[in-house]
Amino acid sequence: MAVFAGVDLGATYVRAVIGDAEHDELGMHKRPTPQGPSGIEVTEAVLSAIRRACEEAGVDPTDLEGVGIGSIGPLDLAEGVIENPANLPDSIDRIPLTGPIENLAETNRVYLHNDAVAGVIGERFYSDRNPDNMAYLTISTGIGAGVCVDGTVLHGWDGNAGEVGHQTIDPDGVMTCGCGRDGHWEAYCSGDNIPRYARTLFEREDWETDLPLHSDDFSAVDVFEFAGDDAFADYIINRIALWNSIGVSSMATAYAPLVIYIGGAVAINNPELVVDPIRQKMDEMVFVNVPEIEITQLGDDVVLKGALASARTGGTGDRKELDSATV
Amino acid sequence: MAVFAGVDLGATYVRAVIGDAEHDELGMHKRPTPQGPSGIEVTEAVLSAIRRACEEAGVDPTDLEGVGIGSIGPLDLAEGVIENPANLPDSIDRIPLTGPIENLAETNRVYLHNDAVAGVIGERFYSDRNPDNMAYLTISTGIGAGVCVDGTVLHGWDGNAGEVGHQTIDPDGVMTCGCGRDGHWEAYCSGDNIPRYARTLFEREDWETDLPLHSDDFSAVDVFEFAGDDAFADYIINRIALWNSIGVSSMATAYAPLVIYIGGAVAINNPELVVDPIRQKMDEMVFVNVPEIEITQLGDDVVLKGALASARTGGTGDRKELDSATV
Repeated sequence: MAVFAGVDLGATYVRAVIGDAEHDELGMHKRPTPQGPSGIEVTEAVLSAIRRACEEAGVDPTDLEGVGIGSIGPLDLAEGVIENPANLPDSIDRIPLTGPIENLAETNRVYLHNDAVAGVIGERFYSDRNPDNMAYLTISTGIGAGVCVDGTVLHGWDGNAGEVGHQTIDPDGVMTCGCGRDGHWEAYCSGDNIPRYARTLFEREDWETDLPLHSDDFSAVDVFEFAGDDAFADYIINRIALWNSIGVSSMATAYAPLVIYIGGAVAINNPELVVDPIRQKMDEMVFVNVPEIEITQLGDDVVLKGALASARTGGTGDRKELDSATV
Repeated sequence: MAVFAGVDLGATYVRAVIGDAEHDELGMHKRPTPQGPSGIEVTEAVLSAIRRACEEAGVDPTDLEGVGIGSIGPLDLAEGVIENPANLPDSIDRIPLTGPIENLAETNRVYLHNDAVAGVIGERFYSDRNPDNMAYLTISTGIGAGVCVDGTVLHGWDGNAGEVGHQTIDPDGVMTCGCGRDGHWEAYCSGDNIPRYARTLFEREDWETDLPLHSDDFSAVDVFEFAGDDAFADYIINRIALWNSIGVSSMATAYAPLVIYIGGAVAINNPELVVDPIRQKMDEMVFVNVPEIEITQLGDDVVLKGALASARTGGTGDRKELDSATV
């Protein structure tokens, strides 16, 4: 039976998994992502993770019929590399991926995606309905989406379709995004930015709160932990729900998906406080085509499983491709 | 040489045009859109317009190799009909289109689109660059978009991808949209809603103005005519520019287009006051992939020309399809 590899390349860990048409985990390897000195070390770690996972599965890398990668960015898809990764040390300017993996596996069926795109491919593959119209949204350190419309996973002319975290959602532009623009969704609602947004709200209005706003350790986790016990924490959570709902309803309007799966640590760890409020606001915000709002089916493994699903289906997540690949 | 027909079905007029691979207008017919009593009269008017345009072109309807239609909505694409058209009398509940035209032209190459989708097909076809990633935005009675990503014209699971006029752009939801939701783009910036928005702004702040706000005839045209001479008119135009920029930057983020063409009477008649401000705001709003913002290449004929382009290219607007269709 044909075997495939999926790779989740994050800023902290690289994971590789081996599967076939029926099995999701014949072998698995996880190792730290090298923090330099150059990109070659990261490439080597990816190759090594694939080799070790193959070893565990009892197959040779050259047996692989396809490899999918869900990766941190930004990607240059034409070159098959990461260029100046935002979340790795500055000494790493370029991480070759597609070429070296093609050489290792002796196949040109190597599919490189950013992590949110790998996410939508995974959700599609594992959904009972295998929908042609769906999106995966990650609310994590940052915010981004992968989108499938009419059976096609969107890229856009520079590969940045679905970078919805950089959509303007606040006309007053109160918060400045990491990209330098004002009013972007990510500047209010990503895990990294929630503490900054909380402090800004605190300074603008007269609140009493037990939140450790001025501690260096103050994080998004604190805000959600104080929910129900602290009026200011509840206020922050309400504001975040508003911005998230505007962003998600905008995705509904732009793409007309049947379902939007939401993943990422902020969403997965706080489904009642983050995901439920979005679902509740869809009817009052979206005119036609109110999509289902679901928590990711794949938890923390959504990128890894999406990468494997991509390898199995020629980069599409479409189960019909799996059938034709393995007949 | 193969001949094709394009149809622009609006609430006021239906127009049909005949072209071949090289000629855009071998024959043309325009007639009023029947206002009832039922949808059949509208179907008959469309068939009759095609027949008369064919007559002028010296061809028979059965010579047609394809027919494209850009239409008012809402459409049921699976059935090939308009269902309960929003801008025609209530007695008209269903207008069959695809089936009767297939019978008339004796071809199953009949392509039905909403008018904004016909628009993007036309812009793509007539662009020198034939881009794979682009959008057409109409700012007219309503606001809507047609979008092409990676060479695929988007539909979405219910055919409503690109209904961007119903995107929430105002978190305060000051204006209520015709669809009943608060804060939608169209409720602030479409030709029909600008007067209502102007009156709302007037009531919320203390303005002196010569605008005939309380006249029954007060229209968007008045607002733009008073530009430069009336501080309140300038304020309205600035607010509209902000909302339009949020909407358009959101399209840039969602779809990553190379270029966004803008048409519709509000934009075409006021390029300096409506389109230029959008273009100027893109750099400060969009992180990556700042698209070119252009006024439509096709003026008032964008839907008709788009419909003909669709007929010529199998519904894609891709010139390569024209080449293969006529070789």
